[in-house]
Amino acid sequence: MPEHLGKQTLRLGTPVHVAAGAAVVGKKEGEGPLSDCFDTVSQDAYFGQKTWEAAETALMRSCFTAVCAKAQLAPGELHYILAGDLQNQCTASAYAVRDAGIPFLGLYNACSTMGEALGLGAVLTACGAGTVCAMVSSHFCTAERQFRMPLEYGGQRSPTAQWTVTGAGAVILRAGGAGPCITHITSGRVVDAGVKDLSNMGAAMAPAALDTLLAHFSDTGREPDYYDAVITGDLGHFGHTLLEDLARQEGLRFSRTFTDCGMLVFDKTNQDVHAGGSGAGCSASVFAGHILRCLREGSWNRVLFAPTGALMSTVTNQQGESIPAICHAVAVENEGGEI
Amino acid sequence: MPEHLGKQTLRLGTPVHVAAGAAVVGKKEGEGPLSDCFDTVSQDAYFGQKTWEAAETALMRSCFTAVCAKAQLAPGELHYILAGDLQNQCTASAYAVRDAGIPFLGLYNACSTMGEALGLGAVLTACGAGTVCAMVSSHFCTAERQFRMPLEYGGQRSPTAQWTVTGAGAVILRAGGAGPCITHITSGRVVDAGVKDLSNMGAAMAPAALDTLLAHFSDTGREPDYYDAVITGDLGHFGHTLLEDLARQEGLRFSRTFTDCGMLVFDKTNQDVHAGGSGAGCSASVFAGHILRCLREGSWNRVLFAPTGALMSTVTNQQGESIPAICHAVAVENEGGEI
Repeated sequence: MPEHLGKQTLRLGTPVHVAAGAAVVGKKEGEGPLSDCFDTVSQDAYFGQKTWEAAETALMRSCFTAVCAKAQLAPGELHYILAGDLQNQCTASAYAVRDAGIPFLGLYNACSTMGEALGLGAVLTACGAGTVCAMVSSHFCTAERQFRMPLEYGGQRSPTAQWTVTGAGAVILRAGGAGPCITHITSGRVVDAGVKDLSNMGAAMAPAALDTLLAHFSDTGREPDYYDAVITGDLGHFGHTLLEDLARQEGLRFSRTFTDCGMLVFDKTNQDVHAGGSGAGCSASVFAGHILRCLREGSWNRVLFAPTGALMSTVTNQQGESIPAICHAVAVENEGGEI
Repeated sequence: MPEHLGKQTLRLGTPVHVAAGAAVVGKKEGEGPLSDCFDTVSQDAYFGQKTWEAAETALMRSCFTAVCAKAQLAPGELHYILAGDLQNQCTASAYAVRDAGIPFLGLYNACSTMGEALGLGAVLTACGAGTVCAMVSSHFCTAERQFRMPLEYGGQRSPTAQWTVTGAGAVILRAGGAGPCITHITSGRVVDAGVKDLSNMGAAMAPAALDTLLAHFSDTGREPDYYDAVITGDLGHFGHTLLEDLARQEGLRFSRTFTDCGMLVFDKTNQDVHAGGSGAGCSASVFAGHILRCLREGSWNRVLFAPTGALMSTVTNQQGESIPAICHAVAVENEGGEI
């Protein structure tokens, strides 16, 4: 049975295995430093569809098929799909699972949604509710149109802007079997530092990342160097530097084990992505591709995955509101880790 | 510990009490048949704010304050807030809980979100994860602008159209204490019957309601007349009639105990709402106001609450997609009900 540690953390108390993970991405992501980690790299941004929105649905559907195949289970053996994306009304997820015939729980915590899905999925699995698929996506073209401007406008990007990842990540969580275990989840609070610049999401999200990391280390009594890697969601290069500054002010030891999915997914020098990658599919595909691979190969044994999300919409931004942010942390450990 | 019954249902196996519920609504809802059940009826559609979006945030915040007061707990005693709404990127919820300082899990399953929140909240509570607030809202004016057209256009409504409820409902779920218990949850699958008419959501959602109700009765072995009331979400008058037809075809006994939040909340004859109420706040406020009151007063002892949701967006509709729908059912029973 799960047990509370401190105010924001649950120790799961029973092994919840990440039985399999799959990541499907677009061409640009496939040209980045993590290209080897992804199951499929599509050269077609439309994924065979006629609209960007349908493309993202196809992307998710292909990721779902891949993760079921890798876990060697038929979709019908799943008890729940927890899924989310960035489209208005989270339609990529709903349409992607339309034919799956499995209970669907839609989630939205912006780019931190993979952290939310892994956390809730792990609790469901830990308390006997069965085998769960957690799946999250984003698509550069749907996100640009929705959050910024239609691609055809060719808008300029500021240096702090990030590049929304075209990608989906999915994992299967199971009570028995093999694979690294989710051992602790630290669910985030909303933190609003007053940032209003839609082109500087890293600055809006860094304070939320700090809040959740401080809670995790305080609740668990662990030190940052307990983990081989502490990986935030999509702070990007600016947000990561800001988090380092904030952490120093709070006395949190910020070492070279700290990195960020938005920094890992693209090559800053050669890919013209300014401050790095972003989007709900950024942390999801980096988790399901890169992080799980490092855990499986044993180059890492203990990882704290802490994806971040910015909870505004273009409407609230145009109305002058600041950008609230959140970060959900999940500890994933190979056998030997305390569960 | 929760236990699976059949494919879609969890028997919670431990008492999860609805310790308190609060419902805050707008003027029109306050003039309807359930006016006595709501904690607050605001005469101001703006709830003291300058925009409709900020109004919905204020509505939710006032509902959150009310439910904490009724449960006699400080917000800091909560472990999680599970919340959702219909705005793009679910911003009403995120802004409403911005200052609460409690882990926030954002949910989106359209107008069925209260069913999803009660279900996930009940599992969290049942497995020791603490005290949970489940809260959902909608606002007529944000929804019209977002899903149909700006109010200023004065668009005509078709006879099958429904009226989005301006309202929020919130409940506190707790492992101990008093209050009716959530005993079973039946999580819905996505069902798409091919309906494309945004002005006939009842038709899109009725097949999903049927799917979940059939699963619930099959999984639990219960008959419809086990319940004093079986209350779907916001099918409205057309959708309810359609559900009755579909149920007959499937041999499901459809009696006078079947009703619908969208039919209950407005007076069809005198309130000019066409096919009835809709919106995520419809089922949420009817649950937290009317249904909990009937359970508490003992006029009902066993209720199956089954809110429905339509999972499209205006973009997917404009692209020619049909409307996928979902329904999450939650059994709520006074002491004596099997847990």
